[in-house]
Amino acid sequence: MNYFDFIREVPDFPRKGISFKDITPLLQNPKALQGAKKALLELLKDKQIDKVVGMESRGFFFGPMLAEQLNAGFVPVRKKGKLPYSTISENYDLEYGQDVLEIHADGIQKGDRVLVHDDVLATGGTASAVCRLIERLGGEVVQCNFLLELQFLSGRDKLIGYEVASLMQY
Amino acid sequence: MNYFDFIREVPDFPRKGISFKDITPLLQNPKALQGAKKALLELLKDKQIDKVVGMESRGFFFGPMLAEQLNAGFVPVRKKGKLPYSTISENYDLEYGQDVLEIHADGIQKGDRVLVHDDVLATGGTASAVCRLIERLGGEVVQCNFLLELQFLSGRDKLIGYEVASLMQY
Repeated sequence: MNYFDFIREVPDFPRKGISFKDITPLLQNPKALQGAKKALLELLKDKQIDKVVGMESRGFFFGPMLAEQLNAGFVPVRKKGKLPYSTISENYDLEYGQDVLEIHADGIQKGDRVLVHDDVLATGGTASAVCRLIERLGGEVVQCNFLLELQFLSGRDKLIGYEVASLMQY
Repeated sequence: MNYFDFIREVPDFPRKGISFKDITPLLQNPKALQGAKKALLELLKDKQIDKVVGMESRGFFFGPMLAEQLNAGFVPVRKKGKLPYSTISENYDLEYGQDVLEIHADGIQKGDRVLVHDDVLATGGTASAVCRLIERLGGEVVQCNFLLELQFLSGRDKLIGYEVASLMQY
């Protein structure tokens, strides 16, 4: 299946000059949704996973589904103040300024083998902050796994030392 | 399986006096995650579904998974300005004031049989706005389906005429 057929390019979103890659046509098509789930799992090549960590909000589309298939738990990473209960946090760089990501302090146990999932790998700032959160809690990042990768933004440079896999590359 | 065992009550979140029902322990436990997916599907009793509509962000945890199992597509409803491309919108009431929900104008086709899914049924304001969005696009709401229902907030009163189902009731 050619998954690129289900990605809609939206010019000037969210800002002028950016061509946004909209994954909602892929979600909307039953065969593409089922195929992408299987293909993301195949990127993992039967590695054993205890937790899948997905980033708010678009990492929630496939993250829980991957966890359910892998016999793993799902742990959300959210923006500051969204998660109830005890959390730890990391800053990450935006184009202008910084933002804060949080994870539940009991979301990862020492020794957990963790799959990091998000929809898009762009600059890698978010994914690298998520890896730091997981490691601070004693988890091991087995793979960072993305639906699509914007190679011209060199996100892999921020993820050196981690296995990185993506279903589509632009 | 007693799913209530996997709901964490967090006092005074997001505001003083509210006892927040945190579903993340359920997501984090592989058996509870798998069981809840099956149980949500059983609430549907083999009804045929073309689209599952899930609300940002916690409706994204199970919404795509249900769609994938039902051989349906998944369509996100998001807060104002988050969805690229052409959308339609509805206002809904908050405790103080209003907010706006959007759906892609091409997310639902005329005659689509739609399952509405969210994590929690509280006052019903969000779910009823989502039903209006679906019907404006020509879809038919087959069921509104929730992980948990806060019965003391009488959300069903805003969803009269729709089938409503929930896995846990408080």
